[in-house]
This record gives sequence, structure tokens and C-alpha cells, in this order.
Amino acid sequence: MKNIKLLIEYDGKNYHGWQRQKNQITIQEKIEEAIYKVTGEEIDLLGSSRTDSGVHAKGFVANFHTNSSIPPEKFREAINSKLPGDIVILNSEEVNKDFHARYSSKGKTYCYTLLNRDVPSALNRHYVHHIKVKLDINKMKEACKYFIGKHDFTAFKTNGSSVKTSIRTITDLHIEIIDDYIKIYITADGFLYNMVRIIVGTLINVGTNKIEPKEIENIINAKDRQKAGKCVSAEGLSLEKVFY
Amino acid sequence: MKNIKLLIEYDGKNYHGWQRQKNQITIQEKIEEAIYKVTGEEIDLLGSSRTDSGVHAKGFVANFHTNSSIPPEKFREAINSKLPGDIVILNSEEVNKDFHARYSSKGKTYCYTLLNRDVPSALNRHYVHHIKVKLDINKMKEACKYFIGKHDFTAFKTNGSSVKTSIRTITDLHIEIIDDYIKIYITADGFLYNMVRIIVGTLINVGTNKIEPKEIENIINAKDRQKAGKCVSAEGLSLEKVFY
Repeated sequence: MKNIKLLIEYDGKNYHGWQRQKNQITIQEKIEEAIYKVTGEEIDLLGSSRTDSGVHAKGFVANFHTNSSIPPEKFREAINSKLPGDIVILNSEEVNKDFHARYSSKGKTYCYTLLNRDVPSALNRHYVHHIKVKLDINKMKEACKYFIGKHDFTAFKTNGSSVKTSIRTITDLHIEIIDDYIKIYITADGFLYNMVRIIVGTLINVGTNKIEPKEIENIINAKDRQKAGKCVSAEGLSLEKVFY
Repeated sequence: MKNIKLLIEYDGKNYHGWQRQKNQITIQEKIEEAIYKVTGEEIDLLGSSRTDSGVHAKGFVANFHTNSSIPPEKFREAINSKLPGDIVILNSEEVNKDFHARYSSKGKTYCYTLLNRDVPSALNRHYVHHIKVKLDINKMKEACKYFIGKHDFTAFKTNGSSVKTSIRTITDLHIEIIDDYIKIYITADGFLYNMVRIIVGTLINVGTNKIEPKEIENIINAKDRQKAGKCVSAEGLSLEKVFY
């Protein structure tokens, strides 16, 4: 039995997130169906994370166990031939039998894209979060520094998710500007439910001068969801990379 | 009567190009309908070019004459409120009564985007032309130089269009690389029918070593459409800017 690791790009616009659900079309389901068409096996595709409805991915990772005789690197083409155009397998390879896309992960990078101008974008309308009010980028960049490090991010998670601990280590949080687009890159050893989107919402509060950068420290320490910003929309979010 | 100039971004995926047609949905028609809803006037919207079915625009220009009392800069919001999300007015302003989006134009910049890797893109599938075979970028860059200048571009137009002359001046043609994406920017005083897409097809012939860069000179001089490359797909093409 082989353990196959897939690197996946997808446009989350038309899906109810990664994880299989009853009566909703999900990315996991689409790829499992494609693998069934290719191998005849009903496999359980293990994903690196449970991206929400509408979230995109440039480098999602998943793995599955198979008895198929298809050479590992040929799964890419075989599965792609059975997938719609908005899901693409970028790479397939055999990995150690213990590899698990989620539990073996050492960290992930997400990117959240804001469009900061008067009018929305026609071309990128499904891939950015549009904000009219002019953001103070320098203050947002200063605020990023307070998030970096090992903290209890209780203030930055949506309740309802059961996790052992809310302590995570953010190793990088930085902003890149391309014309009117603000790209916020965040890397951590793991993320709580909605953590990226709430951190971005909080950075927006800094950019609109609702709070000062240094207040981030207090918000983290207060562990109070009410003190952090809004959970911004899913469409601006993309899983960039998973580290192993 | 005021002459209003519009700067427009659109996603051409769901439209049969710019120009109004019977039984086909076009961008011109959509904006004319929106202006009708706003002003009650059946105006004739004059476009800077006739982009083909599937072609996109980041900076298309159009103008129309109106007796409406709406302040010129307010047309942007008013029209946007009546448009679908894949067409966005970026700016509206009053211009001299003689201004004509097409005839006053001094030139345009188009961008054509190639994705050069084994597999297509899920996220950019409607905005790039995918090529599997590895392209020789240095040769393509060398070939660009031969296009620049004033030439008879008969070899690089699709027949059927009636124009007085096939002489055009390309002032810039250069390539930018972003990861696996190849962006080809081309600026000229005007373009023949399908000219950008045939030039890109010819550059691909250089990149795949079918022809040498210096042969571009012969192809231009031969004025023979058969010697130039294929007309590549519309989806990779975007009108970036119109100069006045």
C-alpha cells in the first residue's frame, strides 16, 4: 500500500470549503470522486486543514493510501483529468507511510488580500476583500510585530471549535503592497478557527485608526474575542504553503 | 451637453467582447443599459477599441454625451450601482466635447499572460494561456526587439478587418516573469485585428525554438500571415491602458 501526497491549487468560490459535508459540494469530495474514477478505490483523503467556504488555496496538501499500480507521479495527470478546472493537482508523489497531511505539518502560510480603493475590482472580485477607507499601511506594519511570537490567541478565534490549547506561534506576519492591493502574509505552526481572518480584521482596525498598533499586545493578553476585530470575508483568504 | 469619459475594468469571461451585437451579451450593451437606468437617456457609448470575446480590461476607456444633471465624477458610483460585479467603472470625468475614446487615442498597452508549467492554474484559469512546453525566455526577449518600431504588420493581422493601412508603430514590447507566469506587455499607436495575439503566438514559436529571434525581421518583411505564429486564445489578453 502506497501513501500518496498531493499538492493542490483550488478556487474556493464555488465550494463549501475543503471538508466533505452532506448536501454541500466540497473540494475534498470532488478529489475523492476523481480518485475513485481513477483507481476504483473509495479512499479517505486527508487534508492539511479545513479551509472554510470560499477560501482559496495555492498550495494545499492532502494524502491518501492506495493499492493502485499507478506510478505515484502519474496520479497528478490522472486525477486532473477527472477534476473540474477550478481544482488542479500540482504535484503527486509517494511519501513515507506515516506521513499525514495534517498531523505531520510543521506550519502553514496564508495570504489575505485587501483591495484598498474607492471601487471594487471586476477581475479580482472573488479573490480580494474590498475596503474603501484609506488604510494607514505604516501603522498596520507596526501592528504586525506584536502578533509575532508564541501567544495565547484566544481573542482571535471563533468559538465552537474544540482545541486543546489556543497557544500558537506566529513566525512571520508581513505586508506587501502591489498598487492598490495589500497582501498580508502570515505564517504559524498552526491556526485557530478563523484566526487569520480575525487578525486581518484587527489589522484593519489599526489601519483605520480605531486602535493604535501597541494595543495589539493588550488585546492578545485580554484573551477577549470582543476586543479583537471583525472576522473578515473568506474570499480574500488563500492557503499559500504547508510546511513539513 | 456634457462629454463624459469613463475608465473601465472588466472581466471579459462572460461577454462576447466589447461591441454591441444582436443576440449576444456584450460589455458595451451592459454599460449602455446601466447609463439608461441612471439617466433615462439612450446614449451611444464610444469605446476605445473593440475587444474580442473573452478579452479582459484593466483600463478600457469609453465616452458618451449626456444632458443629465449628474455631476461628472458621480457617474462612476451611479453607473456601478446598475452594473454586474464583472464590470466596474473606475473613474468618470468630464472631458472636452471633441474627445472621442477611439479617435483621440494616441496609443494603447495590452498585456498577454502565459502560464508556463506542466499543469494549468485553478485560480487564474480564465486569465492566462497555459503552455506546457518550457519556453526559452531569453530568446523570446531577444525576439521582442525586432517588433519594436514602425512596420507594416500585415503578417500579424487576421483578414476580414478593413483598415486603411497595416502600418503601426510598436513603442514597447517587453516580458516580465512572475514565478511561472510570463507577462508580455506591448504598447503601440494602434493595433490590427488580433495583432497582439498573433505576435504572442509568434513569440511562442521563438520560445519553443521553432524559429530564431532574428527571423522575426523576415516574417515582418514577408507580410505573409502564414509565416507568423498562431493567434493564441483570448483569455490571456487584457487591455491595460489607453493613452491620450
